[in-house]
Amino acid sequence: MRLVIDQSDLHAALQVAIRGVATRSTLPVLSGILLVAEPEQLRLVATDMEMTVEVLAPARVQEEGSVVLPGRHLVEIVRRLPPGEVHLEVEGFRARILQERSRFTIHGTDPGIFPAMPHISAGSTVLFDNGLLRNVLRRTTFAVSTDEGRPILTGVSFRAEGDRLQAVATDGFRIAACSVTLERPVEGQPVAAVIPGRSLAEVARLLPDQGIGRLLLDETQAGFQLGEVRLITRLVDGVYPDVLGLVPSEYPTRVQLPTRAFQEACERAALLADTRQPARWVIRLAVEPGRLVITASDPELGEAREEIPAQVDGEGMVIGFNARYLVDGLKAIDTEEVLFELTEPLKASRLRGVGADDFTYIVLPVKIS
Amino acid sequence: MRLVIDQSDLHAALQVAIRGVATRSTLPVLSGILLVAEPEQLRLVATDMEMTVEVLAPARVQEEGSVVLPGRHLVEIVRRLPPGEVHLEVEGFRARILQERSRFTIHGTDPGIFPAMPHISAGSTVLFDNGLLRNVLRRTTFAVSTDEGRPILTGVSFRAEGDRLQAVATDGFRIAACSVTLERPVEGQPVAAVIPGRSLAEVARLLPDQGIGRLLLDETQAGFQLGEVRLITRLVDGVYPDVLGLVPSEYPTRVQLPTRAFQEACERAALLADTRQPARWVIRLAVEPGRLVITASDPELGEAREEIPAQVDGEGMVIGFNARYLVDGLKAIDTEEVLFELTEPLKASRLRGVGADDFTYIVLPVKIS
Repeated sequence: MRLVIDQSDLHAALQVAIRGVATRSTLPVLSGILLVAEPEQLRLVATDMEMTVEVLAPARVQEEGSVVLPGRHLVEIVRRLPPGEVHLEVEGFRARILQERSRFTIHGTDPGIFPAMPHISAGSTVLFDNGLLRNVLRRTTFAVSTDEGRPILTGVSFRAEGDRLQAVATDGFRIAACSVTLERPVEGQPVAAVIPGRSLAEVARLLPDQGIGRLLLDETQAGFQLGEVRLITRLVDGVYPDVLGLVPSEYPTRVQLPTRAFQEACERAALLADTRQPARWVIRLAVEPGRLVITASDPELGEAREEIPAQVDGEGMVIGFNARYLVDGLKAIDTEEVLFELTEPLKASRLRGVGADDFTYIVLPVKIS
Repeated sequence: MRLVIDQSDLHAALQVAIRGVATRSTLPVLSGILLVAEPEQLRLVATDMEMTVEVLAPARVQEEGSVVLPGRHLVEIVRRLPPGEVHLEVEGFRARILQERSRFTIHGTDPGIFPAMPHISAGSTVLFDNGLLRNVLRRTTFAVSTDEGRPILTGVSFRAEGDRLQAVATDGFRIAACSVTLERPVEGQPVAAVIPGRSLAEVARLLPDQGIGRLLLDETQAGFQLGEVRLITRLVDGVYPDVLGLVPSEYPTRVQLPTRAFQEACERAALLADTRQPARWVIRLAVEPGRLVITASDPELGEAREEIPAQVDGEGMVIGFNARYLVDGLKAIDTEEVLFELTEPLKASRLRGVGADDFTYIVLPVKIS
């Protein structure tokens, strides 16, 4: 294997590939990046067996071949090389990196023991606008559960049929649900897949600003084509619960108020939430005629009171929330005004942007005395 | 106490004062910031008993007074308030922060139990250009020891007489020495003081970009006037050792080479330093006719070899260094070319900028096999 590659191209590709390298694994080969020299390009692959990242970089390949090199060391070395052409020569499993007056010899590993690139059999194909997917991910992935005891909730549920795509995430305390229209209908089977939140965080990071991406799905895997990068992830096993079916359908109390003012008031009040309570960041919301009053108090620190003028329909009430859950939901709402809909103090409430039906956020209250 | 202050002025002042708040202290009052309303200004003071930070902010004071408020909470609240006028009202030790529709009540503490502002009796006064002090600090503080077992080395030694100022720091492995000319001679006693590195890190952070600052010293304290901010720190007790007197005065081997190329070659080679050695980041430097060759190798990872053309006078040799110590010194050198002077493989070497006599860096080698 022998090639010449631009330092900045190699560095950019390595920075992507390193995202796929296993951070802790019992298989030493997974701490490496597979480099494959192909005609006109270098292909880099990394995997932790759940998620695989593949990226292409343009290269002048003089001799094809492949090798596995230690991921973090390789990134660090290439990052520190001066700009310009880098020569990469591999003999056996030893790689030499040559540039001007720098010479590195890196001990690599047999590419034969690197896991094979997962193959996705034809199931469903979803074409998406990268900006649209970014929005869907931004509004759902934050709400996944981190509790491995119930793995299904650590993923985002994607359902797509025709030109409709719905993404739902929940950790049992709140539900974030995003529903959008695709520019082109789904090809093949309708989609019903739960994609790990951790993989989606990488997708969001690797997503180009613009352009069209492609998502391929089969029974067990999802593959995202993101510009020059391909990310393949296992799906979470199991059936996603019908969480939206469990929440109230009627919300007799409706409060309309400015989104950012509501968000910032929650953030400020939470600073004086009672630190001695087992439930954290508890704030108290009083729905009154013409306004929402938010209060919090800690016996040692002091008290906060925030008042926001609001258009209130229905009965008033006093209800407690974990401020962080409210803030998370409000951050995902982009419209100037938000509709905050309530049933009763111990039942779920709902947040939606006024004039926007693409995002719904359900949040459970906290019992307050 | 009653005043009106601009949110951004108050936030800026709090961000400075919070630097002086004790991060862990058995005295609860030290986690607070003392606020003193004076005619036309709010004075904020924080201390950890070793270092005291005082900052002034313009304010419309309607009633003078003072209070101690919990530092971190106050910063967080004010940070999140929208821009505009903030009203601060204190009755007893309870403070009310009012702004538009936000109302905070914060439980404060008796300002009477807050430590008195340290007073520096007339000793020496040094006027300095802020840019000059920044340079001196940048080139010395990194080299102080973090070993509390020998407290004197955790400070930077400052000596000043007439218009000469010398700053020296060492951790026993390398010495950074900076010698500069002041625009005005020292007033009062000549200076011989050891200032804690930790306090100097805060001075560097608070130093305005331009302008003239003032340093006052007495037997036990140093006070820096940095724009609107005053920082007073205890001196480190004891006599600073004459570390520069212990190093070689003659360096028969002289190597002149480009500073950045030398630095970057050390950084790269260090990536393949033997991770199994007890001494860390060990690289091997070979002084040869017309060049410096830097190598490192780790039996598992591989080898690095860097070559830098150099102008070499005197005998060649092979010598080992901790790459990090060399890199630290090279970073402090701003000239294009550096003079690397050596005696023998187990004695100290010296780095100086070519054509610059304001900074000298002495570094001990590491024994290599």
